[in-house]
Amino acid sequence: MGRVTERRRTIRIRDGAVSTRPDTLVAEEPLEIRLNGKPLAITMRTPGDDFALAAGFLVSEGVIGEGSEVRSIVYCAGATADGVNTYNVVDVKLAPGVVVPDITLERNVYTTSSCGLCGKASLDAVRTTTRHPIADTPPVRVTPELLAALPDRLRASQRVFDRTGGLHAAALFSETGELIDIREDVGRHNAVDKLVGRALTDGRLPLSRAILLVSGRASFELAQKAVMAGIPMLAAVSAPSSLAVDLAAETGLTLVGFLRGPSMNVYAGEHRITLEEPAVQG
Amino acid sequence: MGRVTERRRTIRIRDGAVSTRPDTLVAEEPLEIRLNGKPLAITMRTPGDDFALAAGFLVSEGVIGEGSEVRSIVYCAGATADGVNTYNVVDVKLAPGVVVPDITLERNVYTTSSCGLCGKASLDAVRTTTRHPIADTPPVRVTPELLAALPDRLRASQRVFDRTGGLHAAALFSETGELIDIREDVGRHNAVDKLVGRALTDGRLPLSRAILLVSGRASFELAQKAVMAGIPMLAAVSAPSSLAVDLAAETGLTLVGFLRGPSMNVYAGEHRITLEEPAVQG
Repeated sequence: MGRVTERRRTIRIRDGAVSTRPDTLVAEEPLEIRLNGKPLAITMRTPGDDFALAAGFLVSEGVIGEGSEVRSIVYCAGATADGVNTYNVVDVKLAPGVVVPDITLERNVYTTSSCGLCGKASLDAVRTTTRHPIADTPPVRVTPELLAALPDRLRASQRVFDRTGGLHAAALFSETGELIDIREDVGRHNAVDKLVGRALTDGRLPLSRAILLVSGRASFELAQKAVMAGIPMLAAVSAPSSLAVDLAAETGLTLVGFLRGPSMNVYAGEHRITLEEPAVQG
Repeated sequence: MGRVTERRRTIRIRDGAVSTRPDTLVAEEPLEIRLNGKPLAITMRTPGDDFALAAGFLVSEGVIGEGSEVRSIVYCAGATADGVNTYNVVDVKLAPGVVVPDITLERNVYTTSSCGLCGKASLDAVRTTTRHPIADTPPVRVTPELLAALPDRLRASQRVFDRTGGLHAAALFSETGELIDIREDVGRHNAVDKLVGRALTDGRLPLSRAILLVSGRASFELAQKAVMAGIPMLAAVSAPSSLAVDLAAETGLTLVGFLRGPSMNVYAGEHRITLEEPAVQG
């Protein structure tokens, strides 16, 4: 625990000058997530918030949808032959009666071998497995100005990034722009799982009034995680992928990309953003 | 094929001005990699170079180490019930006599359930499974000036990034700084697998005289891929993780991070970099 950063000896080269000094690095360790004692997935993550990571991962994969479905989450003390607890194996036991879907060991595997694999199948799988369809009762509505202010608030709260330059960040904001929660991780998908898992255990799922902001790009996987948690709006500082946009359009998720100061692109779900001027064909 | 980018309608907001126009996005689609007909892994990737991606993935996982071990790589035409080829399922058939190791469906899974999972186990697994231990016969040796010039050469060759802002890039350079190959992908690990897979089919493995440059951070996974391909030097524009540094130190990989103009940090394997001044304790 407490291994969010580690120090290593580093040779610094600056305009020809060479010096040796310790450098602070973001910690990366494997985490095995077990479900009812059975290994389900391994992710390379920054240690910390591991129970939230495991819970959020299971929400993203459609295994659970609310906190009452979890009986316990523990570190496996007997993970090694000599009984040492590495704090790198977490077992999630589901509450009695909760059905474990027949998911495979791979992320984003919602197809069978008899089914063709394509982007459309991936979209359909998320739409049909989500426990928290995005609801507009009433719609979250924000101004571009509110969105424009969020990246600076995210950046101001990135404590570990300041020391290592090596973390992705994800944050939840309220529809009035207040920071609800932020997580940093060497893997961007882990940062989102940690947010969602914490919301699950706190009884805040679905996150139907929240805005999810990610420090990097918006991939299909991140859009999937937003949808599975019932989040109506995903904003990214960088570019989205085609499949992330398609998933947003199909599920009703608002997807904002290239959110940089007063500039941004809206790829789907623009009804949640108040646009004072009518959209003009460019 | 040819789906490296896709166009979607986008609402652009620039300082309050709103317009609607098509935007070019990086394409993202799932790729299922089958080994001898059996599904092994699914990765979200940018279409293109799929055979190289599949081959490189198998090198990274320790399944194959040279081109002669591959009998054929094909798109599965019968991937859907109606026989449509989605070009998203690739089957790699191994040459007769090639033993398929008992690998699981997860990336980076080199442990059994009776084994503790920790960073050390991950390092040991790479060291013991690599087919191409990093060799110094004689060592690759480069100057900081040579390394400093590489990011601009990478950037100048990123054709798709210029249009989408949404891709990671990875490139191989010779020890004299010439660009050997470059790949762009929505997933950084895919870009490296594509480079390695192409080298395998071209008979260029191990890449014992090459420098691998990645556009982002250096995670354990990327360092692992370098090691498995016998690459002696990995340089990253951004930060490395602790486990990437540990893997580099343990396997003899030179790891350079924060490579930005004349500034860089050397985390391991500094004997391959000519330092004119002696390293001074800072």
